Amino acid sequence: MGNVFISIGLTLDGFLAPEGMTMDDPGHRNWGAKWGALMAWIINQQYFRDKLKLGPGGETGPVNDRVRQTFERTGANIMGKRMFDQGEASWPEEAPFHTPVYVLTHTKRDPWVRPGGTTFHFIPDGPERALALAREAAGDRDVRISGGAKVIQQYLNLGVIDEMEIALAPVFFGAGRRLFENLDEPAPQFRIESVLNGSFATHLRYVRL
Amino acid sequence: MGNVFISIGLTLDGFLAPEGMTMDDPGHRNWGAKWGALMAWIINQQYFRDKLKLGPGGETGPVNDRVRQTFERTGANIMGKRMFDQGEASWPEEAPFHTPVYVLTHTKRDPWVRPGGTTFHFIPDGPERALALAREAAGDRDVRISGGAKVIQQYLNLGVIDEMEIALAPVFFGAGRRLFENLDEPAPQFRIESVLNGSFATHLRYVRL
Repeated sequence: MGNVFISIGLTLDGFLAPEGMTMDDPGHRNWGAKWGALMAWIINQQYFRDKLKLGPGGETGPVNDRVRQTFERTGANIMGKRMFDQGEASWPEEAPFHTPVYVLTHTKRDPWVRPGGTTFHFIPDGPERALALAREAAGDRDVRISGGAKVIQQYLNLGVIDEMEIALAPVFFGAGRRLFENLDEPAPQFRIESVLNGSFATHLRYVRL
Repeated sequence: MGNVFISIGLTLDGFLAPEGMTMDDPGHRNWGAKWGALMAWIINQQYFRDKLKLGPGGETGPVNDRVRQTFERTGANIMGKRMFDQGEASWPEEAPFHTPVYVLTHTKRDPWVRPGGTTFHFIPDGPERALALAREAAGDRDVRISGGAKVIQQYLNLGVIDEMEIALAPVFFGAGRRLFENLDEPAPQFRIESVLNGSFATHLRYVRL
């Protein structure tokens, strides 16, 4: 059975998304520039540029290898309804997952098949059921809890997250969606597994104790 | 003229002190254990053990060198009244600063001279005046903004912090005093200067852009 992991960009003040980040108002509170500063590290990786068709070039070192591994080891994704809704409005026709994606929701909906191997399944039966389905679909590969923050918090509180990859960027958002809050006590325990240095982020990898 | 810097331990969820941390109630919300987990990395450094008379042993590698440099380059400290009050009740006779310390306060008080080179000066004229006095006292050496969180935030908002040393520990406090909040927009900008790996914390060093 594979691992359950998160892989997320985080600001120094603990946010994974800036306040006011909605596709219908790209200028609101300057969220576009803030988001760009947080994502600068990955926009600059060759594998990511290639996958998202952002054009040629990009770094090919250890950070790029990490990005490739993260994509390649993922056999299924889980995400919240809010993240899905935002993505539905902005992903390209070929959604960038290329695996089954389990969307936590309260409303039933038929699976939505996209070109390139991404199929969205809508799961109204809670996070544990979604994880069981994702594990089955992933087989030997890993399950990525894609987000948002509240979904990651649910799985942290269930004690099932084996690994956390965090790209910590020297950026302040001031407000937005915080990754690490609403955790039950005693909180889950992790140890530092490895650290990769980059110019725009520090790539921290933690594994569960 | 020297630099102005902070050097602080931080949890993954962004706290520098756990909720309920008061000397008169050491069991409150398990704060002692939480604090111990955050401070594990430094308790284990030879220089720190020696300076605080915690007994022999400890690591002597690059993290220990960093701890020594941090102490040795500091020519003056600045702290808030709350941090001073807690310390006044718990520091040993020989307070662990060995420099002039400028305490931001609203009440006048004569300087308080401790054995070992620490003299506390009480400054009711605001953070900029305290910094001017600290710079003068430090000469070529650096000024450390010791804490707490609100004092560091004041100096970040003044735009005078040149460097941030952050020991990021894989620990969750859930609640407590948050380091990075109440920052004005646009927020101060930093770049990653270096990263040192340790078992109990990742030692991030940022410098102002």
